[in-house]
Amino acid sequence: MYKINTNYQKLPGSYLFSTIAKKVSAYKETNPEADLIKLGIGDVTQPLVPAIIDALHGAVDEMADKDTFRGYAPDLGYEFLRNAIVENDYKKRGCDISADEVFISDGAKSDSGNIQELFGTDNIIAVCDPVYPVYIDSNVMAGRCGNYDEKTGKWSDVVYMPCTRENGFVPEYPAKAPDIIYLCNPNNPTGTALNLDEVQGWVDYARKNGSIIIYDAAYESYITEPGIPHSIYQCEGARECAIEIRSFSKNAGFTGVRLGFTVVPKDIAAGGVRLRDMWARRHGTKFNGAPYIVQRAGEAVYSAEGAKQVAEEVGIYMKNAHALKDGLKDAGYEVYGGVNAPYIWLHTPDDMTSWEFFDFLLEKANVVGTPGSGFGPSGEHYFRLTAFGTYEDSMRALERIKKL
Amino acid sequence: MYKINTNYQKLPGSYLFSTIAKKVSAYKETNPEADLIKLGIGDVTQPLVPAIIDALHGAVDEMADKDTFRGYAPDLGYEFLRNAIVENDYKKRGCDISADEVFISDGAKSDSGNIQELFGTDNIIAVCDPVYPVYIDSNVMAGRCGNYDEKTGKWSDVVYMPCTRENGFVPEYPAKAPDIIYLCNPNNPTGTALNLDEVQGWVDYARKNGSIIIYDAAYESYITEPGIPHSIYQCEGARECAIEIRSFSKNAGFTGVRLGFTVVPKDIAAGGVRLRDMWARRHGTKFNGAPYIVQRAGEAVYSAEGAKQVAEEVGIYMKNAHALKDGLKDAGYEVYGGVNAPYIWLHTPDDMTSWEFFDFLLEKANVVGTPGSGFGPSGEHYFRLTAFGTYEDSMRALERIKKL
Repeated sequence: MYKINTNYQKLPGSYLFSTIAKKVSAYKETNPEADLIKLGIGDVTQPLVPAIIDALHGAVDEMADKDTFRGYAPDLGYEFLRNAIVENDYKKRGCDISADEVFISDGAKSDSGNIQELFGTDNIIAVCDPVYPVYIDSNVMAGRCGNYDEKTGKWSDVVYMPCTRENGFVPEYPAKAPDIIYLCNPNNPTGTALNLDEVQGWVDYARKNGSIIIYDAAYESYITEPGIPHSIYQCEGARECAIEIRSFSKNAGFTGVRLGFTVVPKDIAAGGVRLRDMWARRHGTKFNGAPYIVQRAGEAVYSAEGAKQVAEEVGIYMKNAHALKDGLKDAGYEVYGGVNAPYIWLHTPDDMTSWEFFDFLLEKANVVGTPGSGFGPSGEHYFRLTAFGTYEDSMRALERIKKL
Repeated sequence: MYKINTNYQKLPGSYLFSTIAKKVSAYKETNPEADLIKLGIGDVTQPLVPAIIDALHGAVDEMADKDTFRGYAPDLGYEFLRNAIVENDYKKRGCDISADEVFISDGAKSDSGNIQELFGTDNIIAVCDPVYPVYIDSNVMAGRCGNYDEKTGKWSDVVYMPCTRENGFVPEYPAKAPDIIYLCNPNNPTGTALNLDEVQGWVDYARKNGSIIIYDAAYESYITEPGIPHSIYQCEGARECAIEIRSFSKNAGFTGVRLGFTVVPKDIAAGGVRLRDMWARRHGTKFNGAPYIVQRAGEAVYSAEGAKQVAEEVGIYMKNAHALKDGLKDAGYEVYGGVNAPYIWLHTPDDMTSWEFFDFLLEKANVVGTPGSGFGPSGEHYFRLTAFGTYEDSMRALERIKKL
């Protein structure tokens, strides 16, 4: 008789965004006339830019001709894309990363979820609190987090590093060093960012303690301030302790196109075993590459035209972010983020819980956001709004919230 | 100090196709003039058909317009595709499968590798021998197979079900029932297929013993004989015990496009926990959908034009298969498969090992095939040739082999 993976049963309720979707759909059922504005899930709304569309059409045409048709992609991804990444994302920033350390994937979510497979189940993980739920959930599924306490909203074996207004959203070093440290920078959902010195501090801490940092830089293209690193490899020693996960979803609007990559430097090794080789083995065994046409689209992001066009799209979202942030501040809200990330992180008024404020906003303003507590216990009394809507929708939402 | 997943270290050497690639590239280095014909890896060579190309271009254009742009896909995949699958792959064959039991993915390899996550590490798996290496390797990575014995080529905790000329390539029921049974039908690499009665026998066996069948039907569109099931759900009771994995790679030439799906019926449950819900949770947590444009391409496979065109492509490969099989038989080889699958499975002459025959064919005929022993110990003294080359290449390879 087969036995299921009982770790799945430990996961409480559904995934955050599924719960929101259910609540919204129930509201729509009873209020079919409601004109909802969704600033909840971090999904882009701008169409793909012309340079990417051209690259997609061109690659589709190649697939129509037997002389240019492409079957299985190379395990790590096409060299044209890996080289463009190395050149633009790393060399230009002074980071020493080579193409055989770059692994193309179908997105940062898959990589964030799968990377934990390289580690034994006896590792202790640490996460910022609040944070993107996939880090913990994927570890729970593998049996790594102990048990969930409904009262505290915490897993018994996870090290939580609160990021709140009290500490300026800068996580503190745990007294006992965890084995694996997840850092999302700029952070989702708080929209705040650690500067280069602070990230260097984490690299130093990891090297001193033999920890691995899993650095999620999905939002790096939204950084507007100097002094915030775009890659952890801008820090000295990061090649020995840090894996970096990157996405095309937010910078190039690829949420429905699916493309990301992970960098695993060859310098990370335990007992002579290189994590880079383990990840290569995983790619070769349980994955078969991102589509050729999508990899060509990714290459176009780095072309002169493509880079200019995607920067303009990022600019559109950041204009929303600034307007939302300023408007909410004017309306008396306590607001964070929105400067180096497309997320506005507000403290709920009147001591409302995050879900109370979610319901309040849904019912009174017909605006959908994301409850901060869905990202971790320290997210309670916070609320996330994204800047990924259109400018019009963002401003309409703002007006409605101001009137509450 | 972090600890790696030591199960990875148990895996012997590299993945089969990586080893072949290295050998071929070494040969080319010393013989730059050699005109190699590759009938090794199961990769398609025909371009995408016009109906699929049109669908891709159309979907790319939608992504260029903000009114038709698509961001994140629904967790299970778009309904238009899941409905087309249910209608064409299941209802038309009398199988009772609903759209919310179909999970769209980036390919059968990912699903084959990931599906084991739903089960505890104490399950015993059974595989046909020889078989697609991903089934075992993905279980080894999770710590499920015990230890590898270099002498026998077997894992201590895996139940091997030999499929050889002696038993007509029909696996026998293990005396002690395994928990999870992988069946690939038609089978890769042998190219042989179980008929409906034989598959029904496995369904009955699984139900009686509380086992789960993971049924890989990646090659179902190559079936030419009546009496061979295209889906395990043609068998009575399969909804209670069988998960089916399907691919667009081989029927529609999607090896570089990436699309597949897995069916997990709601009737499979252990202690009230439905595997379907667990798989939905995995999809929601560690995956973010196949690209919209690729899902539209998948839909086109089921259109009237698309279905006709992909059937013609399958016909091209099967013409190769028949010609290769007949030609090799004429030349005195002992040949199997090639009737319901695009694989020719030959017994090596002169008691050569599989790898000896690989080297012999590479050096003397400049033809690249796949050593049978790479698919399991019972594959020793066998060799796989694929029908995925062009007709010209297949015939040139045949002529060279005949002259040996």
